Amino acid sequence: MNSKFIVIEGLEGAGKTTARDAIVATLHARGITDLVFTREPGGTPLAEQLRVLVKQGIEGEQVTDKAELLMLYAARVQLVETVIKPALARGAWVIGDRHDLSSQAYQGGGRGLDSDLMQTLRDAVLGDFRPDLTLYLDVTPEIGLQRARARGELDRIEQESLRFFERTRARYLALADNDPTILTIDATQALTDVTASLQATLTQWLSEQA
Amino acid sequence: MNSKFIVIEGLEGAGKTTARDAIVATLHARGITDLVFTREPGGTPLAEQLRVLVKQGIEGEQVTDKAELLMLYAARVQLVETVIKPALARGAWVIGDRHDLSSQAYQGGGRGLDSDLMQTLRDAVLGDFRPDLTLYLDVTPEIGLQRARARGELDRIEQESLRFFERTRARYLALADNDPTILTIDATQALTDVTASLQATLTQWLSEQA
Repeated sequence: MNSKFIVIEGLEGAGKTTARDAIVATLHARGITDLVFTREPGGTPLAEQLRVLVKQGIEGEQVTDKAELLMLYAARVQLVETVIKPALARGAWVIGDRHDLSSQAYQGGGRGLDSDLMQTLRDAVLGDFRPDLTLYLDVTPEIGLQRARARGELDRIEQESLRFFERTRARYLALADNDPTILTIDATQALTDVTASLQATLTQWLSEQA
Repeated sequence: MNSKFIVIEGLEGAGKTTARDAIVATLHARGITDLVFTREPGGTPLAEQLRVLVKQGIEGEQVTDKAELLMLYAARVQLVETVIKPALARGAWVIGDRHDLSSQAYQGGGRGLDSDLMQTLRDAVLGDFRPDLTLYLDVTPEIGLQRARARGELDRIEQESLRFFERTRARYLALADNDPTILTIDATQALTDVTASLQATLTQWLSEQA
């Protein structure tokens, strides 16, 4: 099987870290052990610096939605060109904690940025590069934020209103509905059930791949 | 007369700082004293942080051309939305040390980034916002770099090859040829002659404005 780029997506508190461990276990069980892990925004020294700017913002300055979006794409293209594509080319599998779908959902859905702008930017920057599979962990904002709060401090984006996350989730669901490479996992279940669903979904998907 | 956005452009060492002083003197002489100065990339706390990333890069990491371009546009849209447009709206004149034309020339001409990508990005991010007047100070790379070196250390972009600056200059000239809002000043002359040319050009332009 050719190497694949598998992305985990979902709201804060959806259970992405647990999902990553489950994906690793499933791949290891099939003898796939050359894995590269990425997170977005971030994953290269430059992209991590941009992550800090996006997550923390600047004291006393309102970051405009477009500036935020462009920093996210700067970080993304740097990661794709210098880490993800080279890893896939040498045969490693790449497991991504978030990728482009996060921008589509948070900046497009949550912030309400124009869809044309979003698509134009994605196509101009990334060309036709896409994940092979996206596992979207679907939770309600209430459950996700409750879990995220239990973990500690919330960052600039995590402090958005409940309405923001409702718009973000609605966009996630709408995009998943229209893209066969996005598979939705019910992440409102108990954690062991989420893991079981995810592993079953991934195993099924793997069995269908060439 | 409505407030205007006037941009100074040119290669390193073209004499942009001297030109700014000459523009200020010309505007003051006409009673225009509410001036806001910007520089790009930069001009807001966030944009200045992006400037550092673009200018210094990251130790040991090759910044991709697209990531560089997106950071420049992130800084630009932040500056335009939070500084330039509000200043113009309240009636101030804005004098910019570089603006979008620098990206067209350096990233488009110098780095050879695709023209479609450049135009798509500009239109998507800035809409139809454009300077009222751009004064392009034309020097050869040899003269410009000689002056820049005399000032001290060169940054990451200033350390590019002579061929890079030749391509950048060629793009500046080609764009100036096709855009009546860009006026070219011969900046290879002695500094006092450059200032005289610039002031004559600006005075003529001002007399033509409503």
